[in-house]
Amino acid sequence: MLTVNEIQNMVKKLFENENFIHEPKELYDPIDYTLALGGKRLRPTLLLAACDMFGGDIAEASSAAVGIEVFHNFTLLHDDLMDKSPLRRGKETVYRRWDENTAILSGDTMFAMAYQYFLKGWHPNMEAILKTFTQTAIGVCDGQQYDMNFENRNDVSIPEYMKMIEMKTAILLAGAMKIGALYANAPAQDIERLYRAGINIGLAFQLQDDLLDVYGDVSVFGKQTGTDIKDNKKTYLYLKALENADKKQRDTLLELFGTTPENPEKKIHTVINIYNNLNIKDLTEKEINKLIENGLEHIHEISLHEEHKEAMKIIANQLLGRKI
Amino acid sequence: MLTVNEIQNMVKKLFENENFIHEPKELYDPIDYTLALGGKRLRPTLLLAACDMFGGDIAEASSAAVGIEVFHNFTLLHDDLMDKSPLRRGKETVYRRWDENTAILSGDTMFAMAYQYFLKGWHPNMEAILKTFTQTAIGVCDGQQYDMNFENRNDVSIPEYMKMIEMKTAILLAGAMKIGALYANAPAQDIERLYRAGINIGLAFQLQDDLLDVYGDVSVFGKQTGTDIKDNKKTYLYLKALENADKKQRDTLLELFGTTPENPEKKIHTVINIYNNLNIKDLTEKEINKLIENGLEHIHEISLHEEHKEAMKIIANQLLGRKI
Repeated sequence: MLTVNEIQNMVKKLFENENFIHEPKELYDPIDYTLALGGKRLRPTLLLAACDMFGGDIAEASSAAVGIEVFHNFTLLHDDLMDKSPLRRGKETVYRRWDENTAILSGDTMFAMAYQYFLKGWHPNMEAILKTFTQTAIGVCDGQQYDMNFENRNDVSIPEYMKMIEMKTAILLAGAMKIGALYANAPAQDIERLYRAGINIGLAFQLQDDLLDVYGDVSVFGKQTGTDIKDNKKTYLYLKALENADKKQRDTLLELFGTTPENPEKKIHTVINIYNNLNIKDLTEKEINKLIENGLEHIHEISLHEEHKEAMKIIANQLLGRKI
Repeated sequence: MLTVNEIQNMVKKLFENENFIHEPKELYDPIDYTLALGGKRLRPTLLLAACDMFGGDIAEASSAAVGIEVFHNFTLLHDDLMDKSPLRRGKETVYRRWDENTAILSGDTMFAMAYQYFLKGWHPNMEAILKTFTQTAIGVCDGQQYDMNFENRNDVSIPEYMKMIEMKTAILLAGAMKIGALYANAPAQDIERLYRAGINIGLAFQLQDDLLDVYGDVSVFGKQTGTDIKDNKKTYLYLKALENADKKQRDTLLELFGTTPENPEKKIHTVINIYNNLNIKDLTEKEINKLIENGLEHIHEISLHEEHKEAMKIIANQLLGRKI
């Protein structure tokens, strides 16, 4: 068994050793730029941790680990274009630094490259591996569309929201874990348990992201707080607040989430005040904890000695800023 | 062996029987719309013809045939957005009928769906099939980038142009044929011959497209002639004219291809006059014939009885409007 540090170092080296520059450079420079922005490399880490957990050879799975990160970064590249986001990890997004067409075509190429990485090695479970990856990719696209649809709706329910973030975020984490386990020939029932764990951890991860956008420490979180409120994003916090609001609070929320004032401070302040009055921070943390406990429970059910599960449990907890 | 008509009817039925509508409809309506626009379904026809030629079971290859057409239509969808083309097959393009974000995300989803179709069946040659498809997809993206690069260059050579259209157009036709042959477990040497045939036929197909844009009969060709000249596209005709032009003709061509007059009739007329004086139509037809003869020669080398090659030869000739 490898430690979390060992897995993370291997992932880091994988990307340091990989060369994303090819001809034509107008196409591959933006790809190299995107992949050099870094990030937590969470999905490849989960993939390799899952493989190692079941005693698999993580060298065999390492191309798929690169592939899943290339895919994730492709979705970010196209999302940034669709959302017209100026910055990603503190640097200019591709469509701003180059142009829209470059963002479209470099993204498309990254999607194909993701498959190329998956296909670098071959494995007896390749059918299940590729079907899992492809099904996940389609689900992520569906999730992105639901997210866009929600922008124009005022009647989004919490179950609908949870389903959307499951598709947009959680299934890729869960899919990465399932793929890692497939490389290790894990038993089908354990793969299913790990996948369920991944879904719950992924949902918790997204709710935590929603929470930090309002209550995060800018110096720790690394981005400005309140942007979701400014952008009228119907996050878990907003939907939970609507659910618990009295008539007056509800009217205020609905009205404010229909405006985009040039100076959003007052709007953000008013909304956070309502959140505070309704105890939204606690309610969200409670939901996050419930999800993470569910996730850990699924990991607990996996038919392996607990020591084999250490790294995965540590990653899940680190992900949510929890120490164990 | 199936006749060309039988293969074409099977392809037609494949698409009639396929349901591209799913939830969320905002994502899949544009996909269904795109795939319902029709077209010649050339790539699936070539794929199945190649499979049948080597005695393969075309039912096994039919999902891949749908997949390659879905992929091709994804590239058209994104190309239309990048080129800001208003029409495709006489109907509004997706980015115009819906919006740019819809075109981006529906296209991405189609790319994933293409793999989903490939993965619907499994086959002992799946590794080679998927590697061929993925390598082809990356090549098509590279070709599209070279095409965009050429817009800003005045020194594109004919060999560079041929390389670009090989990537952008020919490798997908050749790749479809190779994949069909892989489903039929054709011998490696014959697959290579068929692939070379596909490259030559694909190049001829693109040069013919260039030619018809200038000399085509609108009522037959279905689109306005002269658009490549209007859009300053450096086609084979333009590059061949530059190669053969005297100083004055060359200066005129270079100057006109740097302008985009609101009323392009005079520009188109002047350019076609130069083409006529330089015999460009004949020179292009000569090149097309050379390529198609090369292609047929590669087919001839394939170690099958000539009667097995009939359908493929007919398709290749039909493609270029030639009767045999």
